[in-house]
Amino acid sequence: METSALQKERAKYQPKLPKALQGAVKIKEGKPTQSVDDYEEIKKLFPNTYGMPLVEFVPADSQDSLSINVGVILSGGQAPGGHNVISGLFDELKKINPNNRLYGFLMGPGGLVDHNYIEITSDLIHNYRNTGGFDLIGSGRTKLESIDQFEKGLEIIRQLDIKAIVIIGGDDSNTNACVLAEYYAAKKYGIQVIGCPKTIDGDLKNEQIETSFGFDTATKIYSELIGNIARDCNSARKYWHFIKLMGRSASHITLECALQTQPNICLISEEIEAKDRTLNDIVEYIARVVALRAKDGKNYGLVLIPEGLIEFIPAVGRLIKELNDLLANHGEEYMGLDHKAQRAYIIEHLSPANKETFVTLPVGVAHQLSLERDPHGNVQVSLIETDKLLSDMVSAKLEQWAKDGKYVGKFAVLHHFLGYEGRCAVPSNFDANYCYSLGTSAAQLIVNGKTGYMAIVKNTIAPTEEWIAGGVPITMMMNIEKRNGVMKPVIRKALVDLEGAPFKSFASKRELWAKETSYIYPGPIQYWGPSEICDRTTRTLVLEQNKELQSNC
Amino acid sequence: METSALQKERAKYQPKLPKALQGAVKIKEGKPTQSVDDYEEIKKLFPNTYGMPLVEFVPADSQDSLSINVGVILSGGQAPGGHNVISGLFDELKKINPNNRLYGFLMGPGGLVDHNYIEITSDLIHNYRNTGGFDLIGSGRTKLESIDQFEKGLEIIRQLDIKAIVIIGGDDSNTNACVLAEYYAAKKYGIQVIGCPKTIDGDLKNEQIETSFGFDTATKIYSELIGNIARDCNSARKYWHFIKLMGRSASHITLECALQTQPNICLISEEIEAKDRTLNDIVEYIARVVALRAKDGKNYGLVLIPEGLIEFIPAVGRLIKELNDLLANHGEEYMGLDHKAQRAYIIEHLSPANKETFVTLPVGVAHQLSLERDPHGNVQVSLIETDKLLSDMVSAKLEQWAKDGKYVGKFAVLHHFLGYEGRCAVPSNFDANYCYSLGTSAAQLIVNGKTGYMAIVKNTIAPTEEWIAGGVPITMMMNIEKRNGVMKPVIRKALVDLEGAPFKSFASKRELWAKETSYIYPGPIQYWGPSEICDRTTRTLVLEQNKELQSNC
Repeated sequence: METSALQKERAKYQPKLPKALQGAVKIKEGKPTQSVDDYEEIKKLFPNTYGMPLVEFVPADSQDSLSINVGVILSGGQAPGGHNVISGLFDELKKINPNNRLYGFLMGPGGLVDHNYIEITSDLIHNYRNTGGFDLIGSGRTKLESIDQFEKGLEIIRQLDIKAIVIIGGDDSNTNACVLAEYYAAKKYGIQVIGCPKTIDGDLKNEQIETSFGFDTATKIYSELIGNIARDCNSARKYWHFIKLMGRSASHITLECALQTQPNICLISEEIEAKDRTLNDIVEYIARVVALRAKDGKNYGLVLIPEGLIEFIPAVGRLIKELNDLLANHGEEYMGLDHKAQRAYIIEHLSPANKETFVTLPVGVAHQLSLERDPHGNVQVSLIETDKLLSDMVSAKLEQWAKDGKYVGKFAVLHHFLGYEGRCAVPSNFDANYCYSLGTSAAQLIVNGKTGYMAIVKNTIAPTEEWIAGGVPITMMMNIEKRNGVMKPVIRKALVDLEGAPFKSFASKRELWAKETSYIYPGPIQYWGPSEICDRTTRTLVLEQNKELQSNC
Repeated sequence: METSALQKERAKYQPKLPKALQGAVKIKEGKPTQSVDDYEEIKKLFPNTYGMPLVEFVPADSQDSLSINVGVILSGGQAPGGHNVISGLFDELKKINPNNRLYGFLMGPGGLVDHNYIEITSDLIHNYRNTGGFDLIGSGRTKLESIDQFEKGLEIIRQLDIKAIVIIGGDDSNTNACVLAEYYAAKKYGIQVIGCPKTIDGDLKNEQIETSFGFDTATKIYSELIGNIARDCNSARKYWHFIKLMGRSASHITLECALQTQPNICLISEEIEAKDRTLNDIVEYIARVVALRAKDGKNYGLVLIPEGLIEFIPAVGRLIKELNDLLANHGEEYMGLDHKAQRAYIIEHLSPANKETFVTLPVGVAHQLSLERDPHGNVQVSLIETDKLLSDMVSAKLEQWAKDGKYVGKFAVLHHFLGYEGRCAVPSNFDANYCYSLGTSAAQLIVNGKTGYMAIVKNTIAPTEEWIAGGVPITMMMNIEKRNGVMKPVIRKALVDLEGAPFKSFASKRELWAKETSYIYPGPIQYWGPSEICDRTTRTLVLEQNKELQSNC
């Protein structure tokens, strides 16, 4: 395997661990926990894994050298640092007992069900330490949710003498990890299931989880690229750059990138929803800023757009919700139709209010909203060209204003979509350390007999030594939501909090950023060099966690 | 001005210089030179700047403290390192005499003609040292070519007591720099003009110019992103990624990125032209690789496509050439027509062979070829969605093969265009040093009374200390070519040499890369840390300059 100079050097990096995880470990248990909502229903659905205490790791004098085999699964979209969760888990299991084995199930949860796996060895993992990607064992989007799958998985678990499964995934995958944990516990199979909080989207976050891994690296990559485009924008001074950013529903990525780069316009889906903005409101807002800058002779600028925006425009969102249910219930019948017939079918079945929204949308967008859903029953927002939709509508608006004598200027647009460039980037020092600590925590949760827990690390704006590692019962983060047309227990997604410090900091400055050109150019992630560069975390995390900063913003 | 941590730290970096430029400098003159072709015509067009010797800088005991004001212009597309050319120029002028002044003409050559300028001061330049972008003085694409413009420029030159103009640009801008130098020399105005070789495209390269600045940084950024996408590709294992790369005509960027990342498929325009490939040949080649990988269960891969590809498909190229002339000669008449009438107009005026090509192209592509030209009379290839055109045609081909029982597999495609992310990136250590040395060389060419020269630095795969700086007469790189329908003296563009070491190295490995998955992940540019990472230059430069490596490949 030919590797780059950076790959070779990063393979040598020894990730840092919180003090409590550096030697022998014991756990300190907190009080029993409750779910965030729908207590009774969640408790009823998870009788064996509900109400367990929070746990924190603390140093111990010694630890039993337990003999334990573990299986690990990467579930869902890639995020920088996945390989470090696995190497943290691997190293800790071997430290506890060199005979312990770690198996990797291949290409996601499907590998458990179909019995596709490899043993992860010291030689194998060496080249993957501190690297991006999930290619060591691959990932997949198969949903683990049927008893059939759980029993099929159990066969290989028994065969390999596996004691615990670690599922590295986002909110949906961790929900399923908890369902699996509950099932194995109810059946008294003695198999533990532990989750790890992964997603570049940053929406798996709550009182217990400060940040999901990958968010730090991905937003740094996107901010680097936005900074580069901003610098180009400010050098050529003739284009408006419309940049769409990955992030299925929450706008955390977009907000973080805005804080790092200070664009002229940044749309936050959650705000648009809360303020009940229409598509036309958004178009007018952008056009107003374009016209304002044009008055100063600045026919250029930068607009950040969250990928999931369209779903958060309330009228469009209500339409999509009905479409999700409609397509979930009438899936096969519908899929056989051609585009024109699909449109007619939808118009026929929609409620009057949503029908009205549907028919007034540009046909291309309406069609994209009617496409096949992802395995979780959600519209595939990454296929919708929101950036082009908006720039076309802004252009039309400006033409009208020009005719009315309200605008004089040029409006030339370039479009960008940033997503795949960041999901598999080499993890930042933060993510390298954070993921390695999460893997180590997962191993300790297993050794300490826990199931239905997610590994967590807190106090992450402090130096790594001072981080606090532990575990949180997955049920604690659950409530009941409608998904794919059915009420289900799920981990509550963390959307951007409009009362939170990151949004408020952004909102306090955006008027200035719109008028002036205040771009910041973060540059590429650095692994060596001054600590202010190499070890900085996200603005989001600092603003959320740093009480002092919060009171100033 | 709020800046990032990286901006702050990079502002402190002191670029390295070749030994000969570190103290007082004198010049060593070589023999008289000739143009690369069309000797008599070039000589006749440039009687005052033709045949001058190559010059090399060597250390001197002391140097006169000449009093000299200089104007600098950034011309054309952005490239990483432009600010360092300016700071090298600034520092050297001030070293020679602290009273010397440097003026920056704003927004490109138009700033000279329209008398828009600023004085570049020590305070002003501080924050721009070792940064990307051209935003210190902006850039523009106005062509300096009329006597009117030259005389208009002279007014402000006289007013500011400027002795020399430095034009930082690509092949077209340096051609114009030479025309300006010749004009001022013929008129005996005593104004010198010096060029600097800038372009991320890498096509301003010859016996004297080892590489144009910006190529190193831009290809590193693109390779980082291609590597990240490759890792995503190899983790999800379900997409073919079609990546179009900036580079107006030559495929140097694409070739360099291929050497750094080892994709499954990489198209090189120059090879397609030389081998007289048709669009269908290219589509079949890609489809064959897709089918080959599908046989091994690999329904994923990476395709690199140079932005300028379409012009190099010989039949399409001949069509575009005729279209360029047609639109140059019938510009205004044509521009007034609507799309349909434009199509009819073109079909009516084309020669029979090119008409046949035109009508058989997909209508969308034919339309894009008929759009407005750039100021140099060239089709704007960046607007043509070559990547989507190709993947659509490959998909249709595979469908046919599936029906014929020759292909079983899935072909899902994601598209990317990498361009604006790299043109204004923070310059690599290489580009930071190279540009600073070019700026220093430009100052020394001025002080030594030269005009019609381009600043050069050679031996650039050695440590910076050992680099050799000097100047080359611009006429030496010229020949006569048809541009915009007219025969003109121009600097010959360096296309990818199919007999050169970089292409041969690529060609010897591409079959393996197609079948296997041999991706390399270069990661982000590093400014601190191990020298193998921070100071590496491009594979192209190493292969071209390193005679030892060449004999092995």
